[in-house]
Amino acid sequence: MTRFAPIPASLPQTVPFTGPEELERRMGRPFDARLGANESAFGPSPLAARAMREAVAEIWKYGDAPSHDLRQALSTHLGIDAAHLLVGEGIDGLLGNLVRLIVGPGDAVVTSEGAYPTFNYHVAGFGGVLHKVPYRDDAEDPEALLDRARQVGAKLVYLANPDNPMGSWHDASVVTAMLDRLPPDCLLILDEAYVEFAPQSAVPRIAAEDPRVIRMRTFSKAYGLAGARIGYAIGDRDLIAGFDRIRNHFGVNRIAQIGALVALLDQGWLAHVVASVAAARDRIAQIGADNGMRALPSATNFVALDTGRDGAFSRALVGALQERGVFIRMPGVAPLDRCIRISCAPETELAIFEERLPQAIASLE
Amino acid sequence: MTRFAPIPASLPQTVPFTGPEELERRMGRPFDARLGANESAFGPSPLAARAMREAVAEIWKYGDAPSHDLRQALSTHLGIDAAHLLVGEGIDGLLGNLVRLIVGPGDAVVTSEGAYPTFNYHVAGFGGVLHKVPYRDDAEDPEALLDRARQVGAKLVYLANPDNPMGSWHDASVVTAMLDRLPPDCLLILDEAYVEFAPQSAVPRIAAEDPRVIRMRTFSKAYGLAGARIGYAIGDRDLIAGFDRIRNHFGVNRIAQIGALVALLDQGWLAHVVASVAAARDRIAQIGADNGMRALPSATNFVALDTGRDGAFSRALVGALQERGVFIRMPGVAPLDRCIRISCAPETELAIFEERLPQAIASLE
Repeated sequence: MTRFAPIPASLPQTVPFTGPEELERRMGRPFDARLGANESAFGPSPLAARAMREAVAEIWKYGDAPSHDLRQALSTHLGIDAAHLLVGEGIDGLLGNLVRLIVGPGDAVVTSEGAYPTFNYHVAGFGGVLHKVPYRDDAEDPEALLDRARQVGAKLVYLANPDNPMGSWHDASVVTAMLDRLPPDCLLILDEAYVEFAPQSAVPRIAAEDPRVIRMRTFSKAYGLAGARIGYAIGDRDLIAGFDRIRNHFGVNRIAQIGALVALLDQGWLAHVVASVAAARDRIAQIGADNGMRALPSATNFVALDTGRDGAFSRALVGALQERGVFIRMPGVAPLDRCIRISCAPETELAIFEERLPQAIASLE
Repeated sequence: MTRFAPIPASLPQTVPFTGPEELERRMGRPFDARLGANESAFGPSPLAARAMREAVAEIWKYGDAPSHDLRQALSTHLGIDAAHLLVGEGIDGLLGNLVRLIVGPGDAVVTSEGAYPTFNYHVAGFGGVLHKVPYRDDAEDPEALLDRARQVGAKLVYLANPDNPMGSWHDASVVTAMLDRLPPDCLLILDEAYVEFAPQSAVPRIAAEDPRVIRMRTFSKAYGLAGARIGYAIGDRDLIAGFDRIRNHFGVNRIAQIGALVALLDQGWLAHVVASVAAARDRIAQIGADNGMRALPSATNFVALDTGRDGAFSRALVGALQERGVFIRMPGVAPLDRCIRISCAPETELAIFEERLPQAIASLE
């Protein structure tokens, strides 16, 4: 199609992820256990669910463009002025808009080899040039990220803390030290999608008005609202205001706005989910150990199980589990791809994983 | 902020629309009648509403990236292969992605002076150069649009049929004739947000594989799902597939996908809404006539009332109504701005409009 603008014309047709429903259609049957997308099968707060059901009565109205009520609630919850808060269509949507705002054609961006593919997709989508550094000890490597950023004159550096897909994390002091060593004119994206699962020691105290960083958080993980498509960013007010130049102002679903607000207020449910996830991590680790796999430490709602084999084995195992009705994913590149990644879930689904994992392994020998 | 990429750095801070909740916050009290955003206060299908309430139970799951089930239902409903159908976050989201896909910096785009501001926002947002032609007899002017497109070498031409904000429409034959006269390498965007309210004679028969046009439709208007953020595009398969290069694949809310599907299947409710809207148009016209205003013919869910005065008067009237608890909008440019625009709604809200309109007029004399 010659009619496409130059950047889209140059892009491949690939998409970052194939979702579980698409895999189910290809297989011709549903999964018995959905453990691949780091969703929360523990579900959202029952209070939030009720508020969402009630909000259906107002679905004929467009949502509130500034998501005022949710931003006020976040402001109170976080102790941050609402001018530093932006609500958007999940971190995926926020990352797309951030890249659009900052990255012009040819601009350098630094991330880790094997980190979040959707971020890379957005960078390519706006003509940015990606530079990747390897993980170190199964964690994103702040020193290497900074060195490369300086070397290539990066406008953005991406760090997920805790990390996906490995579940590793850095102490808050490592992140704040990164800020102090960030090259001038380079912005750190701190993706905190899994922050609610992390120990407090991994959550840096950063002034909301710090212009060196933008933090991204979501209601998709611990708050159990992945299908609602809602998340938020914390950043300096000029950067946050800048999104109004490009964002789809009425793009957030009205039910999502209400659900996120009530979910935020129900911190008791959040604590229940975090505890359930911690127990599920232990359970997944035990299942792994029973099958000769080592669980990597995780500060998220998933566990990377080290198969002790190579990427080809992991890939085959993911396929064999899929054939047996278990949806999981795995890191995309070596050496991370010696692992498979299992999302935390209630016991019903983990019991299915426990049953099918040895069958899947046996099928490969 | 020097850190913004060149295009965003050049953009103004303006946003296309101020929503009613924002106006309510400024006023310090809620509106009594919400007649400004062409939402459907008749609401969605009760079956769709029930399905959405039930879908809350699955909100912890991401939506299906290709919106497969909805696309299949649209395919059946429209008699169009699903490869020609794209589901996205409302027409606003679809327009943004379309512009991004087609318009590079400096590319020419043609629309009408006073037509949909959000489209213009997207064109500016990707560095396109907008060329505007005037309305003719309160309708978008196909001849003038084509002439200008040819003159400036436009990549996109925008036509809403029926039109917003005037409610006017063209016969299907006018639209198909436009296609035949479209310059090569120019794509027609046919915005059919209000198509369900239009007479059949205004709905062109265009082959889905016609590469000259992309049609945009929504569940926000007749289907009463504005807050759900879901719409669809019909276009040739290469163009539709192209969106996968840039779109936020998991960006559509899961409840919206289910609600739209059930709403589509409940054509009985749609017919009820369309009949209710027709009655409301007559009622608005009568209220206008009672106050010395002429209703323009409308094939939409709103009515433009010609005040017989100028834009300054209309603007003052919109403000006076707002102060009296009635939210309406108006066209932005002369000579269209001699009109005010009233969204159709149930009698309760129209009765409030009937009561407050003469008060608002009297306050200006």
